[in-house]
Amino acid sequence: MNLTGLVLPNRENKPRTNGLTIVIDNGTPIQFFKDTINSAGDYIDFVKFGWGTSLVTRHLGEKIECLQENNIEYFFGGTLFEKYVSQGKVDNFYQYCKNYDCRFIEVSNGTIDITNKEKARFIRDFSTEFSIFSEIGKKDGDLAELQSDSEWLEYIHEDLEAGSTKVITEARESGTSGICSKDGTLRVGLIEQLLTSGIGLERLIFEAPTKKMQTFFINSAGSNVNLANIPFTDPIALETLRLGLRSDTFSLLNKQEIGYAGFK
Amino acid sequence: MNLTGLVLPNRENKPRTNGLTIVIDNGTPIQFFKDTINSAGDYIDFVKFGWGTSLVTRHLGEKIECLQENNIEYFFGGTLFEKYVSQGKVDNFYQYCKNYDCRFIEVSNGTIDITNKEKARFIRDFSTEFSIFSEIGKKDGDLAELQSDSEWLEYIHEDLEAGSTKVITEARESGTSGICSKDGTLRVGLIEQLLTSGIGLERLIFEAPTKKMQTFFINSAGSNVNLANIPFTDPIALETLRLGLRSDTFSLLNKQEIGYAGFK
Amino acid sequence: MNLTGLVLPNRENKPRTNGLTIVIDNGTPIQFFKDTINSAGDYIDFVKFGWGTSLVTRHLGEKIECLQENNIEYFFGGTLFEKYVSQGKVDNFYQYCKNYDCRFIEVSNGTIDITNKEKARFIRDFSTEFSIFSEIGKKDGDLAELQSDSEWLEYIHEDLEAGSTKVITEARESGTSGICSKDGTLRVGLIEQLLTSGIGLERLIFEAPTKKMQTFFINSAGSNVNLANIPFTDPIALETLRLGLRSDTFSLLNKQEIGYAGFK
Repeated sequence: MNLTGLVLPNRENKPRTNGLTIVIDNGTPIQFFKDTINSAGDYIDFVKFGWGTSLVTRHLGEKIECLQENNIEYFFGGTLFEKYVSQGKVDNFYQYCKNYDCRFIEVSNGTIDITNKEKARFIRDFSTEFSIFSEIGKKDGDLAELQSDSEWLEYIHEDLEAGSTKVITEARESGTSGICSKDGTLRVGLIEQLLTSGIGLERLIFEAPTKKMQTFFINSAGSNVNLANIPFTDPIALETLRLGLRSDTFSLLNKQEIGYAGFK
Repeated sequence: MNLTGLVLPNRENKPRTNGLTIVIDNGTPIQFFKDTINSAGDYIDFVKFGWGTSLVTRHLGEKIECLQENNIEYFFGGTLFEKYVSQGKVDNFYQYCKNYDCRFIEVSNGTIDITNKEKARFIRDFSTEFSIFSEIGKKDGDLAELQSDSEWLEYIHEDLEAGSTKVITEARESGTSGICSKDGTLRVGLIEQLLTSGIGLERLIFEAPTKKMQTFFINSAGSNVNLANIPFTDPIALETLRLGLRSDTFSLLNKQEIGYAGFK
Repeated sequence: MNLTGLVLPNRENKPRTNGLTIVIDNGTPIQFFKDTINSAGDYIDFVKFGWGTSLVTRHLGEKIECLQENNIEYFFGGTLFEKYVSQGKVDNFYQYCKNYDCRFIEVSNGTIDITNKEKARFIRDFSTEFSIFSEIGKKDGDLAELQSDSEWLEYIHEDLEAGSTKVITEARESGTSGICSKDGTLRVGLIEQLLTSGIGLERLIFEAPTKKMQTFFINSAGSNVNLANIPFTDPIALETLRLGLRSDTFSLLNKQEIGYAGFK
C-alpha cells in the first residue's frame, strides 16, 4: 500500500483476530464464486453459506476446496442448525459439518424457541470439536424489539461462558431485525453498551449487510471491527471503508486501534 | 436431499407443471449467464429475456443454446411484443420468435392500449404455433390501481378462454404496480380471490421479484406456486424458501400440495 | 438493429460525444469484469474505478488492459483525488495516474473543503496532460441541500472556464445527495435550469445510479444524454431505456436529438 504514498489505517494480515470480514454466499454460481475468492480473497476471512443454501448448492465441495486453498474459513448459516434442531436431528447436522471438514459452527436461536440453557448445552457439546460462533438476536422484527439491552448483554456473557469463540449480533441480510429496529435504524444505545461493556471487540462480530451499517460500526469502533453478512459482491467496497478511502469514512485514520473512544 | 436426514416439502422434477421458477435476464454477461445455468439449472424452468434486452444482447444465440442444452424454456418479455404491436409490425415479431426457435410467447398489454378483444385475437393467432403466457395488469402504478378485483378475474378468464396456457400477474421488477399497490404492498384481497377462484394454481404465475413477495406467495399457496420475475441471481435463494430452509418460510412443510388452505 | 424491423432512436457509434454511458466498478472480480466488457462493451464508453477501490484491486492492470483492447476509457473516482489532496500528496496522484496510462482525471471537491479557486488551479494544471471531468456537488446530503441552484450554475461555468472537458453532477451511488435531495427526489428545478442554460448537453454528465434517475434524464433530455455512475451490471438495461425498449421510456422515439424541448 505504501507505494501509493498514502497513510492508511493499519490492518492485520490474515489470519486475523480483529478486523474480520465475513461474506455471505446466498447461492452464487461456482465460477463467480471462485472469481470473487481469487480477486478479493485477501480481504475475506470467512464465507458463511447463508441459511440452508448449502443443501441446494450443486458445487458445494468445489466451493469449499477453493476456500481451503485460499486460507478462508467457512461455516453454515445458523438457520440450518435450527432446522436440524427443529426436526430432532442434531446428530445429522454434526455429521453434515464433519463431512465438509468444518472447523467452525454457528449456533443460533433466531428463528425457533431454544432456551438459553439448551443453547449453552449445544455450545458446550459442539465446542469440543468445533470453534463456535453463537448468534444473539431474533430474526423476527417484532420479537427482536422485545429483547432489552440488558438481556442482550446477559445472553452474550452466557454464550461466551458456555464456550463460544465469538458472538455474532443478528441483523439479517436486510438490516431490519436483531440489532436494528424494524424500520432499519440501528439501536445505537445498545451498540454503545456493547462497545463499552468490556467484552472486547475481538469477541464481537456485527452483522452489517448495508453500507450504512458498515459505516456506522467502522466510524464507531474503528477499521478493525469484525463484520459479518457482507454481501458476496462487497468485500472490496468494505475494505475501502475500513481504509478511509470512501467519503463515508474519509476522516478515518488512527482509529484503527482496537478500542472505543466515544461516538463521533 | 434425503442424505441430509431432513424432511422437506416435495418438489416435482423438471419438466414441472407446478412450482415453476421463471428467472429474468436483464442483460447478464454471457459467461455469468452460463455459470448460473450450470450451477442452478435444476431450479430454473424458464428464462425470460426481460423487456427489449434481447435486441441489445450480443450473445443471444449462445444463451439460447445453453438453455436448450439444459432443458430450460425461454421467451421474450411482453414489452418487446408491445413494441412491435405499437409500430404495426407483429409479423416481424413472429419472425423474430421463429428465428430463435421460441416455443413460448408472452402476450401483454401492460404498457400500450390493446383492448381485451384485440389481445384475445393475438392469443388465438399465436397459440396455433406457440404456447402463450399472457400477462394481466398495468405497469403504470396509477393505472394499475384503477383495475378492480373483478376486472382481474374477468380478464384472466378471457385470456384462458382465448388459448393462453398460463396467465402471469404483473408486478414488474420492482413490485410496485400490477398486483401490488404503488407503495409496494400486495393486494392481498385480490390475491386471495385468485387463489380461491377455481382457476387452478397451475394456470397462474405470479411475478414476485422480491423476497417479501416470494415469501408471501409460498406461505399462502405452498411450495409449488409458480413464480416469475425472479432476479437472475436468486434461484437458489428462492428454492430455499420453497423448501422451508430460510427463516421466512421455516414452518413450511406439508403445505406443498397444490391447493389453498386459507391465509396464515 | 434494422434487422428487427423496429424504428428506434439514433445512437452514435463509439467513440461518441453524446450519449455516453459511464459505468462504475466498485470492485468486481476480474473474470466478471472481462465478461461484462466483452458482452456489453459496445454500450460502455467509460469505466470509473469508484472512489479508492483501485488501491485494493488485485488485477487493476489486467482490467485496464481489457478496457484498452475494447476502446473504453477509464478514470479513478474523485474521492481518490481528494484523498491525495487531503494528505498533501497530489504529486503521488499524478504519478499514480501516469503509471496507469490514464487519459482522463476526475477532479472533485465532494468530500473535503477545496475552494473553487483551488479546484480551478487543479483543473488547469492537470489539463495540460489529461482531459478533465470535474464534479460539482456535495456527497453529504445536508451540505448538498445548502448549495443553491445559482451556485450550481456558477460552479459549472467556473470549471469549464478553467479547462474541464465535461462537468459531472454528483448523485453518489445512492441518489441521495448532490443533485438529489436527501430523500432521493430529484431537484427538478435545478436540472431544468441546467438543461436550458446553454451550457450544452455534451458538456454535462449526470450521475444516475437508479432506473428512476436514468428514466428521468432520458425522458427529459433525450436518448443521448450523458449518464454516469451506472451500476456495472446495468449497461444493457440502460441501453434499452435509451432505445425506448422498456416501459418507462416506451414512447421515446424522436427525442434523441441533442436539445431540450421542455419536460413531459
